[in-house]
Amino acid sequence: MTELSDLSDEQLRGLHEDTLTRYRAFRDQGLKLNMARGKPAPEQLDLSNDLLGLPGAGHYTAADGTDCRNYGGGQGLPEARALLGEIVGAPPENTVVADNASLAMMHDHIVYSLLKGNPDSAAPWCREPRVRFLCPVPGYDRHFAICAEYGIEMINVPMLEDGPDMDRVEALVAEDPSIKGIWCVPKYANPTGAVYSDEVVERMARMPTAAADFRIFWDNAYAVHHLTGERVEIANLIEACGTAGNPDRALVFASTSKITFAGAGLGVFASSARNVEWYLTRAGKRAIGPDKINQLRHLAKLPDIHALHRLMDGHRELIAPKFDAVHEAFARVFGDYRVATWTRPRGGYFISLDTPQGCAARTVELAREAGVVMTPAGATYPHGRDPEDRNVRVAPTFPSLTEVKQAAEGIAVATLLAAVEREIARREA
Amino acid sequence: MTELSDLSDEQLRGLHEDTLTRYRAFRDQGLKLNMARGKPAPEQLDLSNDLLGLPGAGHYTAADGTDCRNYGGGQGLPEARALLGEIVGAPPENTVVADNASLAMMHDHIVYSLLKGNPDSAAPWCREPRVRFLCPVPGYDRHFAICAEYGIEMINVPMLEDGPDMDRVEALVAEDPSIKGIWCVPKYANPTGAVYSDEVVERMARMPTAAADFRIFWDNAYAVHHLTGERVEIANLIEACGTAGNPDRALVFASTSKITFAGAGLGVFASSARNVEWYLTRAGKRAIGPDKINQLRHLAKLPDIHALHRLMDGHRELIAPKFDAVHEAFARVFGDYRVATWTRPRGGYFISLDTPQGCAARTVELAREAGVVMTPAGATYPHGRDPEDRNVRVAPTFPSLTEVKQAAEGIAVATLLAAVEREIARREA
Repeated sequence: MTELSDLSDEQLRGLHEDTLTRYRAFRDQGLKLNMARGKPAPEQLDLSNDLLGLPGAGHYTAADGTDCRNYGGGQGLPEARALLGEIVGAPPENTVVADNASLAMMHDHIVYSLLKGNPDSAAPWCREPRVRFLCPVPGYDRHFAICAEYGIEMINVPMLEDGPDMDRVEALVAEDPSIKGIWCVPKYANPTGAVYSDEVVERMARMPTAAADFRIFWDNAYAVHHLTGERVEIANLIEACGTAGNPDRALVFASTSKITFAGAGLGVFASSARNVEWYLTRAGKRAIGPDKINQLRHLAKLPDIHALHRLMDGHRELIAPKFDAVHEAFARVFGDYRVATWTRPRGGYFISLDTPQGCAARTVELAREAGVVMTPAGATYPHGRDPEDRNVRVAPTFPSLTEVKQAAEGIAVATLLAAVEREIARREA
Repeated sequence: MTELSDLSDEQLRGLHEDTLTRYRAFRDQGLKLNMARGKPAPEQLDLSNDLLGLPGAGHYTAADGTDCRNYGGGQGLPEARALLGEIVGAPPENTVVADNASLAMMHDHIVYSLLKGNPDSAAPWCREPRVRFLCPVPGYDRHFAICAEYGIEMINVPMLEDGPDMDRVEALVAEDPSIKGIWCVPKYANPTGAVYSDEVVERMARMPTAAADFRIFWDNAYAVHHLTGERVEIANLIEACGTAGNPDRALVFASTSKITFAGAGLGVFASSARNVEWYLTRAGKRAIGPDKINQLRHLAKLPDIHALHRLMDGHRELIAPKFDAVHEAFARVFGDYRVATWTRPRGGYFISLDTPQGCAARTVELAREAGVVMTPAGATYPHGRDPEDRNVRVAPTFPSLTEVKQAAEGIAVATLLAAVEREIARREA
């Protein structure tokens, strides 16, 4: 592999000229591509079109006789909790199935904790001088946005290949009682695709925390979203916390947003009986219950976990080639130059691209000017600030395979150009 | 009319014996009836069974081309906002259509105000020494429960026949900057059935308030829920507030919970552009958007306001006889004795029964022992405390007409017995 810094000035100039030519050629195609949106493609949504006519005439009764058309049932239907409990690793009685957004349940946990305190809080969080959360980075912008909204301070923790840097996490939570939580996407993490190792899960469950009311926000958004033939499994955090004597530490979330319909799926939450009761009591002040007809609808489409896995196989067939196409374009364009690293995730929705330091914003700018919209640089960091300006999130699921191939080429050329520009500027400085 | 206090001791004893005999005869039937639940009957839900197969194969696209299966569209579909905007009296751009619970939108307004302050707040409400809401009583227990949950002090204000006692409301809000809001069910109020007069609406819109960030929580839950041939209209609060120079004062809510399916309908919110933008910005941190497929589903069933009114005519045919049956039973059992007053609402879901002072809890107890479950006495007051122990809420929609007739008879006999017992106790004291 060749570092740009190893090139002679002449070689660098030559590479700049070549890359600029390629960039202009790409730009002059006048394409309009979008690799910013972590959302399913229409063909993926088509896999669940049965839902449009379900549950069907005469079907409005749950297994226990509940008329799902009427009020009530704040915890969700038992059979929906049984199905989705398998995804979050909890029995139905410790599982809540709600409306279309697991993010909303995470948000509401934080809001209720701010205004009421959680079951282990001495006071509502909003009465404390400061509240802080650990944020493994790069991470999911919507997690960070909730913290930003409510003035919760965010502390960056590096994501490693098997989860957050646990030495750092343990040291921080042991000392600082204002640290009330950590955001985790434990499987096929957004955006790096990392899978938390058993050791990381174990250490999370066991670590002493200065805050008695510390909680792990475990957003298992990609629990069944495999990109290879392997259905990767991770350790069960709820069980690990129970074994470690911290039974109320884990708050586990998932949804069918990227299983059935992204806008019209089911959100799910699981935890200890104590946390579930606390949450349902709070949520019961907010609404009388979730849309149980949508739960019936999903159960008609997905009667058991095998049906759900088969559906996910269909998603994989549609999107795995898009991830492959990005990898191939990156490998081809970067060639022998060591200008970027990127992930090859075994599941999830994103590829994480690390440019040379100080090149991410310029890469996104160049890509945009060439017709490829990307997630804004920095979006994967709290407050949108990537301290090294390196990370770019690539979301290949929504565009067609042809578009993904084109866009990946454009992104790679933009990255290479940004890196060369920066090396030139470094030498001129 | 005869007051119990006008009876001789002997007459009173005779009435007690007669009433006890009737009560025991009723009790010995061993009925199990429930007049506590303000929810639609199965036959009402049947009117919307089309929804179970809608929007139907191939129908997932909104008028503007939006794929409703995917993420996004936080304000709701334009066509859904146009339809439900007619109910809340606002143009589509000032209307938000969300998920199945308007109560959730009211709750979230309060939560966001507590944690962030509303657009007119100098600080988040949770930073103020106290926050108070005016509560016209009797009123809706779930409104009061939200305040109780978050430590918002509630000040009772008497409901009159045309709305809250505005002299009292005006005096309170003019003086006390900690009063941030008032709960209103302006049409066919829960539980009294009162309809706010134009004058009350006008005074609400115009009144000076010590709090710059004062808001009217206008829960127009029964906007189209008529029990007579007359479609009662009330003045438009949003417009009145605009005219009065208080354009951001009105927060208007409604839902299709008692139009289509109570558990699977659409909630709606309307206000000024400023308030709508503020709300959407907040709600956008919580979730990526509402279930747009359910909005399409509703639009397929209810393509315009006329279809909606026709559906409501169907509800009226089913439930108006139940309200009549309660009135007839009450009138018959109370006969010439002045022991109770009750409302004859022109719409909505409830009859409000006022017993003699100190008799409501005993009435509910006697009814329960005779097989008729009612809303707990006091439930229509903040913290469940009716200072005069007089008000009982009667919810006749859910049981069958036969059951309503039986239950109303039981409630009336229980009320009469409680009143007679109390008069006897008074004389013995």
